[in-house]
Amino acid sequence: MSQTEHRRVRARAITESVTNLRPQIVAALQELVRIPSQTGDELGAQLSIATMMRDHGLDVEMWEPDHRLLEPHAESVTIGNGFADRPNVLGLLHSDGAGRSLILNGHIDTVEPGDERAWEHPPLSGAVKEGRLYGRGSCDMKGGLVANLFALHALRQAGFIPAGDVIMQSTISEEDGGAGALAAILRGYVADGVVISEPTGLALVPAHGGALMFRLHVPGLSAHAGARDEGESAIEKFAYLHHGLLQFEARRNREITDPLYAELPNKVPINVGTIHGGAWASSVPEFVVAEGRAGLIPGENLATFKQEFAGEISRLAVADPWLRNNLPRVEWLNGQFAPAAIPIDSPLVSTLSEVWTRAYGTQPKIIAEPYGADMRHFVMTGGMPCLMFGAGDVRLAHAPNESIPLEELFTAVRITAEFIAEWCGVM
Amino acid sequence: MSQTEHRRVRARAITESVTNLRPQIVAALQELVRIPSQTGDELGAQLSIATMMRDHGLDVEMWEPDHRLLEPHAESVTIGNGFADRPNVLGLLHSDGAGRSLILNGHIDTVEPGDERAWEHPPLSGAVKEGRLYGRGSCDMKGGLVANLFALHALRQAGFIPAGDVIMQSTISEEDGGAGALAAILRGYVADGVVISEPTGLALVPAHGGALMFRLHVPGLSAHAGARDEGESAIEKFAYLHHGLLQFEARRNREITDPLYAELPNKVPINVGTIHGGAWASSVPEFVVAEGRAGLIPGENLATFKQEFAGEISRLAVADPWLRNNLPRVEWLNGQFAPAAIPIDSPLVSTLSEVWTRAYGTQPKIIAEPYGADMRHFVMTGGMPCLMFGAGDVRLAHAPNESIPLEELFTAVRITAEFIAEWCGVM
Repeated sequence: MSQTEHRRVRARAITESVTNLRPQIVAALQELVRIPSQTGDELGAQLSIATMMRDHGLDVEMWEPDHRLLEPHAESVTIGNGFADRPNVLGLLHSDGAGRSLILNGHIDTVEPGDERAWEHPPLSGAVKEGRLYGRGSCDMKGGLVANLFALHALRQAGFIPAGDVIMQSTISEEDGGAGALAAILRGYVADGVVISEPTGLALVPAHGGALMFRLHVPGLSAHAGARDEGESAIEKFAYLHHGLLQFEARRNREITDPLYAELPNKVPINVGTIHGGAWASSVPEFVVAEGRAGLIPGENLATFKQEFAGEISRLAVADPWLRNNLPRVEWLNGQFAPAAIPIDSPLVSTLSEVWTRAYGTQPKIIAEPYGADMRHFVMTGGMPCLMFGAGDVRLAHAPNESIPLEELFTAVRITAEFIAEWCGVM
Repeated sequence: MSQTEHRRVRARAITESVTNLRPQIVAALQELVRIPSQTGDELGAQLSIATMMRDHGLDVEMWEPDHRLLEPHAESVTIGNGFADRPNVLGLLHSDGAGRSLILNGHIDTVEPGDERAWEHPPLSGAVKEGRLYGRGSCDMKGGLVANLFALHALRQAGFIPAGDVIMQSTISEEDGGAGALAAILRGYVADGVVISEPTGLALVPAHGGALMFRLHVPGLSAHAGARDEGESAIEKFAYLHHGLLQFEARRNREITDPLYAELPNKVPINVGTIHGGAWASSVPEFVVAEGRAGLIPGENLATFKQEFAGEISRLAVADPWLRNNLPRVEWLNGQFAPAAIPIDSPLVSTLSEVWTRAYGTQPKIIAEPYGADMRHFVMTGGMPCLMFGAGDVRLAHAPNESIPLEELFTAVRITAEFIAEWCGVM
């Protein structure tokens, strides 16, 4: 049998295997979506995925990250109250072969559901309707975890054993910086390549933007609401600064010409996510504290950007009669996401690209994403090539009615299975 | 002795008496300022003022308002968790004479100190510097309470006994609606006239604006911060609505021509005092809740204004592509302050005006104030003529470095003493 024929036979066997596994894939994703696992509260879902890994015959390792090892990285991950009852879960498939090793990573933690009234199906429902599975975490990224798990399972059910070690990871705390993925790297789990099954809509993502979390303190001058003109409203001053930051964002967008970013309407978004200010409805508010996230692209230096951002705030403050003498303050929070990228001609990219092309007959989309992710830890701390590839639309992540199209999920399972075979080789 | 001579002798005696009482006046105000008495926590300061009243030979009555009696008025006062440990304190001077009776009212509760770093002298210091006494409540309105107390004391020390009943009131809960003053009225304390010693800068204030407390709920659409253009920021939508409300405020100001309001730069201020929105720095905020206070002038109907305000929000919402289909919501809070006024030729106004003119040789300023006050309860529920008159600058109320000029306070004591004599007659 020629290599081409061999691949065709294998692809057919994998496809059949995935088709047979569809009910199990859906059931596994429903099970995970129905267990809340907001960042900090990952235990229940991790126990569930550990059981799935054991059922698939993987050697399971589960451990709570050691906060002392992470403390040198406190700027880029959130340590908070530590990691008691917040285990990482790894499923290991050791190989005697000489193939390349592979880490398939996903994070188990989700953001909060937000206002449940905005959801058509409750965020913990796992409801399936018109080919989509709904719930918080369905696409970001319990879907990806399930895809990884069943890709390896489908490959082995089809009769192919990877010729390199495969490390299946379900890590914690991605949403606030990636303590889980980093802890796995620091524990010594490395491989020749890493795929993170974030929802990329089946695009290959070899570069992601970074993000810095900021807190903006805006001073005001309190006064009785009845004589509000005697005071200075920190809420109005905040609105002025926010407007200025959006203009700064627009300028930064205009300066980016990298074709990987061509399709992104907002390549370096500056989002103000929370605001809190004032103490009393009938007093002029004397403070506003706002927290937000500023996006960066690969190649940008975090320290340089911080200076530019703070400089923008200073420039705006100086132009305002009140803020000039009552300067707003920028604070940088932990949970920094540095931007990261691997070369577009990396073997990881080309191997997955070839698998994709054989499956579809066309070239995959290769794009950058604006959001920060655990990829940076694998690339920058782990020194491993890493890319993101998975089912689902990132625009639904963190949003009401988060959901994943099941056909796309099954495709991700199939392509990932073929990629494992291609990357590690099979025995 | 002619009546004019009699008045001159009396004024001289009162002035001498007040001069001798200066150290005691300052000490009493310091004592009260040093006892925190934020709304809800009035007990300590009330026990202190009750002792002062007893020391001045008044019959003291102290009782906790009955929340069941106030519940029919729940729209205009705050009942909250009730009034346990929150007594009203009254000091009564019964008279056998046939003169007019008088209530001298002040509230013991203060707003919170705010950011203590903004204060030159700590908010509980009672520090005296360059003729001013500093601290939260010094002008709003522990100064007024002390002025009332020592006005009666000075009059009696000068040898004059009021020919009508005098009821000295230290009431609670003014800052959140006036449950204390209202409870005193409902308990049956009425008089032929009421003076509230709010800080009017020694102006006579026979009319005050009203205020409605609102809560504005602004919806957004959550999305991952990295794709923020997919969401709708409730913070940005709030800023749009706030801007519109300030234009509405400007229009309302232009329409007011009442000369009582001529000196006020902002006759009907709309203040947004608190803001709270968003759940996560890296998500587009899906809600903002803001609370504020809208000012009204006498003659305005609360219900009509509410309709206009809500109509303005609707008009703004309809002009916005997102808000049009996701309407913001206006909620009206308890603690409504209706505007109130008494006729400018009321005997209460003319009597105090004549006293003032004899003391200064000029006409007093007679103005309206934009802030709501307990005056409305006395006028509207109690059916009593009421005006406000006292030392201190209301622009310092609720602000950092709240303070009261002591010379002005002593003047208020003296004029109030002469007013008691004139209003009640003396024996």
